[in-house]
Amino acid sequence: MQDRKISLTGIKPSGTPHVGNFLGMIAPALELAKTYNAYYFIADYHALTTVRDGNEMRRLSYDLTATFLALGMNPDEVVFFRQSDIPEIFELTWILSCFTSKGLLNRAHAYKDSTAKNEAAGNDPDFGVNAGLFNYPVLMAADILLYGSHVVPVGQDQKQHIEITRDIASAVNHAYGEEIFVIPEGVIQETVATIPGLDGRKMSKSYDNVIPIFAPSKQLRQRVMQVVTDSRPMEEPKNPDEDNVYNIFKYFATPEQTQAMREKYLRGGFGYGEVKQELFEVIEARFGEAREKYNKYLADTKYLEAILMEGAKKARYQGSKVMKKARRAVGVRFKREVLVES
Amino acid sequence: MQDRKISLTGIKPSGTPHVGNFLGMIAPALELAKTYNAYYFIADYHALTTVRDGNEMRRLSYDLTATFLALGMNPDEVVFFRQSDIPEIFELTWILSCFTSKGLLNRAHAYKDSTAKNEAAGNDPDFGVNAGLFNYPVLMAADILLYGSHVVPVGQDQKQHIEITRDIASAVNHAYGEEIFVIPEGVIQETVATIPGLDGRKMSKSYDNVIPIFAPSKQLRQRVMQVVTDSRPMEEPKNPDEDNVYNIFKYFATPEQTQAMREKYLRGGFGYGEVKQELFEVIEARFGEAREKYNKYLADTKYLEAILMEGAKKARYQGSKVMKKARRAVGVRFKREVLVES
Repeated sequence: MQDRKISLTGIKPSGTPHVGNFLGMIAPALELAKTYNAYYFIADYHALTTVRDGNEMRRLSYDLTATFLALGMNPDEVVFFRQSDIPEIFELTWILSCFTSKGLLNRAHAYKDSTAKNEAAGNDPDFGVNAGLFNYPVLMAADILLYGSHVVPVGQDQKQHIEITRDIASAVNHAYGEEIFVIPEGVIQETVATIPGLDGRKMSKSYDNVIPIFAPSKQLRQRVMQVVTDSRPMEEPKNPDEDNVYNIFKYFATPEQTQAMREKYLRGGFGYGEVKQELFEVIEARFGEAREKYNKYLADTKYLEAILMEGAKKARYQGSKVMKKARRAVGVRFKREVLVES
Repeated sequence: MQDRKISLTGIKPSGTPHVGNFLGMIAPALELAKTYNAYYFIADYHALTTVRDGNEMRRLSYDLTATFLALGMNPDEVVFFRQSDIPEIFELTWILSCFTSKGLLNRAHAYKDSTAKNEAAGNDPDFGVNAGLFNYPVLMAADILLYGSHVVPVGQDQKQHIEITRDIASAVNHAYGEEIFVIPEGVIQETVATIPGLDGRKMSKSYDNVIPIFAPSKQLRQRVMQVVTDSRPMEEPKNPDEDNVYNIFKYFATPEQTQAMREKYLRGGFGYGEVKQELFEVIEARFGEAREKYNKYLADTKYLEAILMEGAKKARYQGSKVMKKARRAVGVRFKREVLVES
C-alpha cells in the first residue's frame, strides 16, 4: 500500500445518488483502490457555497458515506474522510492564496460561467457571486496538495483545476527553492457513455428522469415502468440501440443477458412491460443487497462518524508531513501536536 | 477582566520599530489593556502576501513580541498571540468567504489602490495582485469575529475593513437566523499628531528618516544629531513649532522640560547641537531601560515562544466558543477536542 501512488477524489455531496452517478462517478472511484493508495473526501465545505442548511449538510455527508460503504468501499484499505475534518486544508488555502495570481482565478471556468450569465442577463458580472465560488480553485489546490497526491482523476471539464493547482504548487516550490509540494498529474477519465434517463435525455436530477440506486423495490419498479418507449406494436422487431430500456439494461446485465435481450429486440414479439420488468430485475439484482446495507449504515450515524473520524486521522497524519514543510518554509511555527499514524 | 468588552488589535510585523510607531500604534495599543479585555495578534499570515522569507518572518514575529514586552505589556493581563497559531482563523475565513459577496472585495481600498496603480501604468488591473491581497478583508473579518471582539480600534483608513466585517457577520447571522457572531464596533483612534522624521517629513521607514526605539545609545545619538534644522545663527530667537528637534522633543519630554525648551527657543542664544543632545537624552531616558529588556527578550526565543503559545491557548479557547456555533450552524462536526481555559 505504502509504495503505491496516491490518488485523490473529491466528491461534492448532492443528495441520494442515481444509477447514472454510480456508473459515471462512484464505480470508477471505487476502482481506484485497486491501483492506488486511494483518498476520497466529501467536499462539504465546498458545498457551503450553495448549501445553507446545517442539517441538510450533515445529512448529505452521511448519505455519501453510507453510499460508498454500501457499494463496496473497504474503509481499511482507503482513506475516506470529510473535508471539514481537516483544519489544515484551510490554513494551506491561505498560504496558497498568497501565491495565486488573481488573474488565474479571473479565468477559472466556474467563475467565468457566472459572469457570462450575469452579463447576458444585463447584471453586474459579479452579481450573486460569493468569494467562496471565486476562491474555490485555491481550496481545491489545497485539497490536492495537502496529501501529496500524485494523481487526480478528473473529467474534461475539471482539467483546468489541475492546471491551476500545478501552477500554484510550482510557484510556492519556486519561491522557497525546495520541493514543498508534489506536482500532481490530472488523469482524464475515459468518458463513460452517457446513460439515458427515463425520458432518453442524459440521466440527471435536474431533468427529474433518474433511477435512484437505493429506492425501495416497489418504488424502483414504478420508476423503471416510467421509461419512455416508442409505440410500435408488440410483434414488430425493434432496434435495441434506439430504445431507452435496452440502453439502460446493457449497463447492468451480464454479457449473456445483454445478448439475449438484443436478440429479443431484433426478433420482436414482446411487450415493453416485459423488458421493463427485466430491467427492474437486473437493477434490483445489482443493488438490492447494497440497498439493505445502505439503510443499515444510514441508521447508524455513530458508525458513520467513526468511519469518518478514522479517515480524517489518516488524512491528517499524511497532511501533517506537507504542512510541516510548508509552515517551516513560510516562517510560522512548524512543531505542532504530533498526529500518530493509526 | 471577564466582564470587560473585548478589544482586538492586529499588528502587521514590519521590522524594528521607531519612535513614530511607538506614538502612533504601540502606546495606544498598550493603553487598551486599561479598559478592555485586550487581544493583540501578530498578523504573520497576513504578512505572507509580501514577506517571502521564512527566517525573516520568524524574526519579525519575535521582534514584535519582544518589543511589546519591553514596552510594558503584561502577558498575564492581555492575550498576545500569533495569527498563524490559530488554525481556526483559516477555517472561519473559508466559512465567511461563502457569505462574502465578491463585489464587496472588488471595492476594498487596498485592492482598488493596486488596480488603480496598474491602470495608471498601462498594465492589466490585476497585474502582480495575488489572491491573498484580494481576500485579505475576509481574513481580517475572521480575525475579528473569532474572538467575539466588541471593539476594534482603527485608523480612518481602516474603517472600511470594519464595515466589511460587519456586513459579512450580519449575512451569516441572517442566513442561519441566530447570533453566531458579535457585530463589532470600529473605534476610530484619535489622530496622533504626525511625528516628524529626521528630515521633517512624516517619520517613516520608506523615507529612511526614522529614530529607532531600541538602537544602542551611541547609534541613537548619531541618528538624533542628523535631525535637519535651519541655519539661523546661535544668538537669534527661533520658532519652536517650526523646528524638527522641538517637534520630536515635545513627545518625550515632561511638560516642564517642554516648557523650558520652548522658552529657550524663543529666547535664542543656543546651538542646535545642544538641543539635539537634550532630545537624545529624553529619548534615552524614555527607552533606555526598555532597550535592555528588549535585547534580553530577543535573545531568549524559548521564552518568547512560551509567551506566544500561552496567548494562543487563551485565544483558541475563546475562539472555540464561536467556532462551535459556526460549525453547528453550517453543518460540519462541532464536537472537537476541548481546549481548556488556562
